[in-house]
Amino acid sequence: MDSDYGLPRELSDLQKERALYQPDLPPCLQVLVLPSVDLFETGTTVRVDFGDGTTTTDPAGAHVISQAFPHTYGLPLAHFLRATSKVPDAQIITEHPPIRVGIVFSGRQSPGGHNVIWGLHSALKIHNAKSILLGFLGGTDGLFAQKTLEITDEVLSSYKNQGGYDLLGRTKDQIRTTEQVNATMAACQALKLDGLVIIGGVTSNTDAAQLAETFAVAKCTTKVVGVPVTLNGDLKNQFVEANVGFDTICKVNSQLISNVCTDALSAEKYYYFIRLMGRKASHVALECALQSHPNMVILGEEVSASKLTFFDITKQLCDAVHARAKQEKYHGVVLIPEGLVESIPELYALLQEIHGLHGQGISADNISDYLSPWASALFEFLPPFIRKQLLLHPESDDSAQLSQIETEKLLAYLVEAEMNKRLKEGTYKGKKFNAICHFFGYQARGSLPSKFDCDYAYVLGHICYHILAAGLNGYMATVTNLKSPVHRLLRSNASKFLIEDIYRNPGPLQFDGPGADAKTFTLSVEDQDYMGRIKLLQEYLEKVKSIVKPGCPQDVLKAALSSMASITEVLTVMASSSFNSQGPL
Amino acid sequence: MDSDYGLPRELSDLQKERALYQPDLPPCLQVLVLPSVDLFETGTTVRVDFGDGTTTTDPAGAHVISQAFPHTYGLPLAHFLRATSKVPDAQIITEHPPIRVGIVFSGRQSPGGHNVIWGLHSALKIHNAKSILLGFLGGTDGLFAQKTLEITDEVLSSYKNQGGYDLLGRTKDQIRTTEQVNATMAACQALKLDGLVIIGGVTSNTDAAQLAETFAVAKCTTKVVGVPVTLNGDLKNQFVEANVGFDTICKVNSQLISNVCTDALSAEKYYYFIRLMGRKASHVALECALQSHPNMVILGEEVSASKLTFFDITKQLCDAVHARAKQEKYHGVVLIPEGLVESIPELYALLQEIHGLHGQGISADNISDYLSPWASALFEFLPPFIRKQLLLHPESDDSAQLSQIETEKLLAYLVEAEMNKRLKEGTYKGKKFNAICHFFGYQARGSLPSKFDCDYAYVLGHICYHILAAGLNGYMATVTNLKSPVHRLLRSNASKFLIEDIYRNPGPLQFDGPGADAKTFTLSVEDQDYMGRIKLLQEYLEKVKSIVKPGCPQDVLKAALSSMASITEVLTVMASSSFNSQGPL
Repeated sequence: MDSDYGLPRELSDLQKERALYQPDLPPCLQVLVLPSVDLFETGTTVRVDFGDGTTTTDPAGAHVISQAFPHTYGLPLAHFLRATSKVPDAQIITEHPPIRVGIVFSGRQSPGGHNVIWGLHSALKIHNAKSILLGFLGGTDGLFAQKTLEITDEVLSSYKNQGGYDLLGRTKDQIRTTEQVNATMAACQALKLDGLVIIGGVTSNTDAAQLAETFAVAKCTTKVVGVPVTLNGDLKNQFVEANVGFDTICKVNSQLISNVCTDALSAEKYYYFIRLMGRKASHVALECALQSHPNMVILGEEVSASKLTFFDITKQLCDAVHARAKQEKYHGVVLIPEGLVESIPELYALLQEIHGLHGQGISADNISDYLSPWASALFEFLPPFIRKQLLLHPESDDSAQLSQIETEKLLAYLVEAEMNKRLKEGTYKGKKFNAICHFFGYQARGSLPSKFDCDYAYVLGHICYHILAAGLNGYMATVTNLKSPVHRLLRSNASKFLIEDIYRNPGPLQFDGPGADAKTFTLSVEDQDYMGRIKLLQEYLEKVKSIVKPGCPQDVLKAALSSMASITEVLTVMASSSFNSQGPL
Repeated sequence: MDSDYGLPRELSDLQKERALYQPDLPPCLQVLVLPSVDLFETGTTVRVDFGDGTTTTDPAGAHVISQAFPHTYGLPLAHFLRATSKVPDAQIITEHPPIRVGIVFSGRQSPGGHNVIWGLHSALKIHNAKSILLGFLGGTDGLFAQKTLEITDEVLSSYKNQGGYDLLGRTKDQIRTTEQVNATMAACQALKLDGLVIIGGVTSNTDAAQLAETFAVAKCTTKVVGVPVTLNGDLKNQFVEANVGFDTICKVNSQLISNVCTDALSAEKYYYFIRLMGRKASHVALECALQSHPNMVILGEEVSASKLTFFDITKQLCDAVHARAKQEKYHGVVLIPEGLVESIPELYALLQEIHGLHGQGISADNISDYLSPWASALFEFLPPFIRKQLLLHPESDDSAQLSQIETEKLLAYLVEAEMNKRLKEGTYKGKKFNAICHFFGYQARGSLPSKFDCDYAYVLGHICYHILAAGLNGYMATVTNLKSPVHRLLRSNASKFLIEDIYRNPGPLQFDGPGADAKTFTLSVEDQDYMGRIKLLQEYLEKVKSIVKPGCPQDVLKAALSSMASITEVLTVMASSSFNSQGPL
């Protein structure tokens, strides 16, 4: 082994205490010691309830997807329930033969990733001590090269509830080319894997879905399972309520943003432009803004929707600085998602041209000569530091190298130029604008995971096992009903936040006491628990069914029939495409 | 009031809990409810023990300093003791007439600053409810303009144990020019202040010393007291063991550095160059290195002592990268103190030239035309971004604007260039060198203060009161014997840290449980407790005195005389200048 992956680590006192923390399992996954131990292996007895076949979020895409994924499209939702749950047709899984499972990190490290491995290992060993879990060393490169480390309790001991991906590491974060897919299949076959678990975000789970289909076509017996682990928080939809790592990242970043806000209030002389890691979507920036109440946050989705240009955004920022100066305020905090650069139409077009030229094999040094006149004019307008960053080779998912493009510096530069211009023209009469720029990302994603992420990841690891024990391929592990019992209502405070400084400081990440169990605001908002509400609906339907049985009074039947007829009619209309064009989130 | 200073703040749950935390006082400052309450005001009864007159750390400077500070040089050390302490000649302070005190923030905000105000307010009110504490709004600018806020329990309620300086704010951080000193004296007289407390670092406490002398000369009755509050940790000597804020800053930074180390281990593809706020001295970098074990740390003091040039440092870094590459390691973490730029001889000389030209009123745009040929050659060699930063106007203490000079980027740039050269020449055969740069400072100094800083600052506030109650001018408040009972020995692990990755992660700042009471390593090292050891010596002397009394046996007297004669002789030689040229730390 030529790297440090999987070596035992020396832990600090706090890390040691965290290593002893045992996450809770939901009741359905808890180990039951049954009286008739001869009937079952000691372990959880889980029922699987297969729900309706799933479809695409956008019905327009259903046809294309179903054609591309003939073996894995439309599979039924699988719910894991307590053995004693009274759900008709639920299938009890009693057989737990030993199985061999491989697990790999693919994508940006996200706090909690190690606990998925721990949870899966724990579930495997509880059900059959002869089961084997192999970790691939060095991410997908290790998968292609069949470099493995057998996961044991000893190996896990200094990685339980710890941050980073250093138990197994990550490298290419891609299983896409024919060569990569073939190498993966060869690895699964050579290692006799019953299951392959891929820990990652949007791109890696897309790769996992494609891999599952390819394996099914090739009659490869290895089942593929994906786990939503991504600090970006962008693998969210009606099925996946949360992503492992998002909670921690938002808490660590919010602490730092709040410290900067306090700093701004103390000296009142700087504007802080803070760019936040989180890829294209602005989930991290949104959550951090809800946690820490900075003066402004620019959301990529809003910029896209309003088709704001660079100059529009600069003008908005300058007008805000101007308005604050009228109140004698020369400080402020502005959050910027790292993906903003791809949300601004003209910059996105420029990046597309650059990436196209990269694809044609043109070297970065020469690309500017090949740009279209329009793109070239924009490129030449930009300051040199950002030009160099825009010319970087795109990432494995064809997006720009967002972590390397200092959008916050570009905006600060443009705002400073514009404010100086207004000062010179006499339209602005305040003090000189001064900005300090930050990029928060690397310093958060290696953090000790929060309690939420420890628990969530561990439970997802257990679920991976049950998916494999049920023989399912092309599934993703999720947990529902994560939201807080108390829903908080969010109001638009934008103009208050802009002018008044109502900064909020959640403080450093705690594992006990106030704040230790705080959930992210975005998880606490109403109507998040899609699956829970579907379950509730099914309970209503069952109730009606149990009331309206042969022998029930005529008027009950009549009322039920009339109500159900009208509901069915309304829902049929609503489910037609015209209503459905809008996504569920 | 045209700013937000002193407004009540909305606190998060964790902040609320912290606001309820009551720091402990050392026994000598605790409130004693005495049986004879008619004799004393209810409050602490403190004895003041005046020790020897103090001198300068460097005896060579004593003469110059004594001439410049005729009224305040050589004042005796004042110890505050329990009323019951058996120290001969200690003076009991029983009178506590109402007094009026002003307090001002001067210098970079440092976690715990608010608790000095709270401690002073609490001590004032315990001893006489009619005493008044006035906070100057907007730092020294507010002092000159006599803008005050009366400190009350209500005002303090949302600032107790909270970070930042936003209760009063800070601005110019300077009381130096004749105009500034006169404005300060005018403010003290107009507001009838018995005392002025200045909260700040090296520069502000130097200003405070000068102010005390000036007030003494002018027979201004306001007494000046300084408090060592600086995240830089550089106001340390045999009397001042620790600075308020240093503990917190090192803990917050160490957490972030450790997260970055974990990140480096997980993806193994980047070198992280992290610059740390802390001014000229490298105390913060040293402490953070001891906490988190990065691969390398460059200490300004070592660079100065060895007169390393930029090229020497670059070469050292490249050789380290090279050595790690031979072990297939392409990641690493390097800490750089922000003051490094002033420790490198040729850059310091260049900065001195630039500052000299600033002083002559030459604008930044034209300075490069006026540089000496040698300085000009260096200047032109540097990349444009750093040139712009070096040209910034110097700070109030004539140092460069260290927070704005991206030394970490300059080093990463030079290392990359050199590694690319070695790659081209074939002397280096590893992967391409990739660096990510960070500056940690603003995101730490607004943090909630650690328990240590909460306690230490609060106690210092109490001591400020006792200094004023004793009628002393030109004193600084300190607390001794802060170090941990268990001393840790530090070993030089540099080569192990460099190649092996023995990163350590103290985790996020905690207020309970493991790590909450951890002290900084630099405070835990042996022979730190200078004042405690002086006390111990005095106890030995007293013991000898009490044994060798008239009536003691002849042989006891003989042994004592002979021993003391030889000790006195040795110490006389050692105390002569030849031995003493070296500083105490």
